[in-house]
Amino acid sequence: MELIKPKTMRGVMELLPLDQVAFQRMLDVIRETYERFGFLPIETPVMEYKRILLTKSGGETERQVYYLQSKGAHDQEREIEYCMKFDLTVPLARYVAEHEKRLIFPFRRYQIQRVYRGESAQKGRYREFYQCDIDVIGKDVLPLEYDAEIPVAMFAVFRNLDFGKFTIYINNRKLLNGFFAALGVNEESLPGVLREIDKLDKRGREYVVETLTGEGFALAEPIVTQIMDLVGLAGSNGQKLDALSAMKIDHDVFQTGLAELRQVIEHIAASGVPEEYVAINLAIARGLDYYTGTVYETLLDDHPEIGSICSGGRYDNLAGHYTKSHLPGVGTSIGATRLFYKLKEAGLISSATSLTQVLVTRMDPNLAHDYLALAGLLREAGLNTEVFYGGGKFGKQMKYADRAGIRFAVIMGEDELAKGEVTVKDLQLGEQFTSGRDKLTETILARLN
Amino acid sequence: MELIKPKTMRGVMELLPLDQVAFQRMLDVIRETYERFGFLPIETPVMEYKRILLTKSGGETERQVYYLQSKGAHDQEREIEYCMKFDLTVPLARYVAEHEKRLIFPFRRYQIQRVYRGESAQKGRYREFYQCDIDVIGKDVLPLEYDAEIPVAMFAVFRNLDFGKFTIYINNRKLLNGFFAALGVNEESLPGVLREIDKLDKRGREYVVETLTGEGFALAEPIVTQIMDLVGLAGSNGQKLDALSAMKIDHDVFQTGLAELRQVIEHIAASGVPEEYVAINLAIARGLDYYTGTVYETLLDDHPEIGSICSGGRYDNLAGHYTKSHLPGVGTSIGATRLFYKLKEAGLISSATSLTQVLVTRMDPNLAHDYLALAGLLREAGLNTEVFYGGGKFGKQMKYADRAGIRFAVIMGEDELAKGEVTVKDLQLGEQFTSGRDKLTETILARLN
Repeated sequence: MELIKPKTMRGVMELLPLDQVAFQRMLDVIRETYERFGFLPIETPVMEYKRILLTKSGGETERQVYYLQSKGAHDQEREIEYCMKFDLTVPLARYVAEHEKRLIFPFRRYQIQRVYRGESAQKGRYREFYQCDIDVIGKDVLPLEYDAEIPVAMFAVFRNLDFGKFTIYINNRKLLNGFFAALGVNEESLPGVLREIDKLDKRGREYVVETLTGEGFALAEPIVTQIMDLVGLAGSNGQKLDALSAMKIDHDVFQTGLAELRQVIEHIAASGVPEEYVAINLAIARGLDYYTGTVYETLLDDHPEIGSICSGGRYDNLAGHYTKSHLPGVGTSIGATRLFYKLKEAGLISSATSLTQVLVTRMDPNLAHDYLALAGLLREAGLNTEVFYGGGKFGKQMKYADRAGIRFAVIMGEDELAKGEVTVKDLQLGEQFTSGRDKLTETILARLN
Repeated sequence: MELIKPKTMRGVMELLPLDQVAFQRMLDVIRETYERFGFLPIETPVMEYKRILLTKSGGETERQVYYLQSKGAHDQEREIEYCMKFDLTVPLARYVAEHEKRLIFPFRRYQIQRVYRGESAQKGRYREFYQCDIDVIGKDVLPLEYDAEIPVAMFAVFRNLDFGKFTIYINNRKLLNGFFAALGVNEESLPGVLREIDKLDKRGREYVVETLTGEGFALAEPIVTQIMDLVGLAGSNGQKLDALSAMKIDHDVFQTGLAELRQVIEHIAASGVPEEYVAINLAIARGLDYYTGTVYETLLDDHPEIGSICSGGRYDNLAGHYTKSHLPGVGTSIGATRLFYKLKEAGLISSATSLTQVLVTRMDPNLAHDYLALAGLLREAGLNTEVFYGGGKFGKQMKYADRAGIRFAVIMGEDELAKGEVTVKDLQLGEQFTSGRDKLTETILARLN
């Protein structure tokens, strides 16, 4: 028989078991922290009706959507009905609209699932990746306090993940919009101007100034200077807020945005988040068109090259395509697959040690049933336990434990059995000890803690 | 704007949050138990190259496979390259063959992921569903002890899931094959005969006898009687094993199968599984062609109509399509989506209570920051806590806690704040108590345990 070369497709992350353990631990911390903040899980199917999924998007996103069809339907040349979800926001909108009557508002959900984009495969770009989202959806109204709760949860997530110092950057779209309106920048060019501002970090001030004064935008130099002054505001959050007030900009939308920003900052502080983790950054606009108030980005202080690891914001109406109800919301998303990849590359995550804590070795094949009983005992005590059934010399069994990353190897021969004892090799500390059979689980648990 | 009707596609399971919590708990128990037995996680992408995925299958399975293609590629009429996985076994084979050199054998993995089949949508048939698999893969050899370990793990899973009494049925394909060979049933008709035997439960003895003596199989009546005697063997496992020995069937394959079956039963007992949970059942053949030794099925004693909730067995060579290495394995799979649906229908699973344990209410808007600080305190103590930011009367807040299924509502006004106290409403017990602020988390945690 001719062999087929076994190969994962490009653009997906497939891990060896101990890396999978590390990745799973990361997802578990995110999930546990989301639950700590009173978010409840939902999962949506990977596939959605095409007519539902492709309402919001267009252009590049739409080109990258995966179509889906059973071979049977394909062979009959039937029309394509289904797509794979490319984010968790559109499915959330569909979910909330579909189940609206059975949900309790404000609706707080977390969702940790894979999404799919037919990206051209290149390093660090994924066709399949995890998103870990939280959102709070209100019915008709959603108080501003929820805008503050999201970054408080983000703070807890990244503190618990322990990837080093990070900063949550906060801005407000109303403040930006009002500012530009007061400057007389016309509304149509605003999205473009905001997109350019988003590039400040990557392309630098000079590039952005040139672009904004250049042919495309043709803004007057004094205006661009004022824009640059705004987005370049420095100092503490309090100083920035004071400077913004001192500008005395006579525009309602600006003042509303400023008031919101001030309250959000105050609420975050009241929730116990240390100030050095939160910074107003007036250059953040979030390219997406649907953010209408508070916006967030989060960066690792020592790894700015990774870019934002958690972004989101406030939007006015989640599900206008599917329901007449007005559903304002606020939320954020962590792209876990890319984050894991980047942190591993930066050496901040390494493969985990095995989840398996004990290997029951097989010194004497005649005692096979005693080993099984011993394993049962260890498992009942909550220890993850494997029994080695392979034959072979004892050294081979130790080598297996070592390669597999299992910390304790339990050894029992005729002598030990008769004495009610067990010998334990602690492969991590490189030492060996003897324990009474009745004390064994206790002893091992004590060493693990 | 015209509204699009929001609708999940048919044949998928989408749950409301509290049902999702119940489902997630089920998956967590399965995962934790798998880990207890020393299995490590892997995940494979949802998509595989078509040429890799479609080697093993054919017929009905192949017709149901989902094809996958980005819109961009589809519009260019490019050839379809990818499929979605329809089980976890073929991806496991590809995974082991691809990463063979970096894996440690025996390779023990668990995998809890969704798989996809373009089934025609009908009640209880899913197009997207979870499988929860464990397998142990050996290199060249895999001792028989692993055949016993799988049902021991299955016992622990279903004991921990606590869905009521269940029985793990065990058989051995060698024993069956040898038996039929000794009877002179030709090898070509064997798969068909085994498929008929598999139907005994559903169609009854008469139907199977008629089919086997009928035109298609044309077996002589005495032979069919012997077959029926075999598969109908009654009594304890020990009695069945003795009866099989007493048949004195002069066929090596039969005798090997019988010896294996005896050892597997003995090993399971030595592992501490009570006898009433394990039963030899000679009528189990498992339709699939690749099982070559031990086979398993598990049924809930009180809900036989659900069918097998966990099936598997021993196979000779996992990845013959992808590698020259000889990789024998043994494993089992739980179809979690269907199981959850059926158990819910049978009333054995109900929606969970909320994961959120405490609601901090908002009696006095002036104390907003104090409520935030209080919530931070509760969360630090490990309590899943939500702050209610909506305005409205106090009764509305209580109603929200009640509807959301949150057990404790924390109430604090000016008075309590001044005294360093907090009032707590225990909505589950329907009582109210006052606690010092410094004792609050302790008090709530004590009530939860």
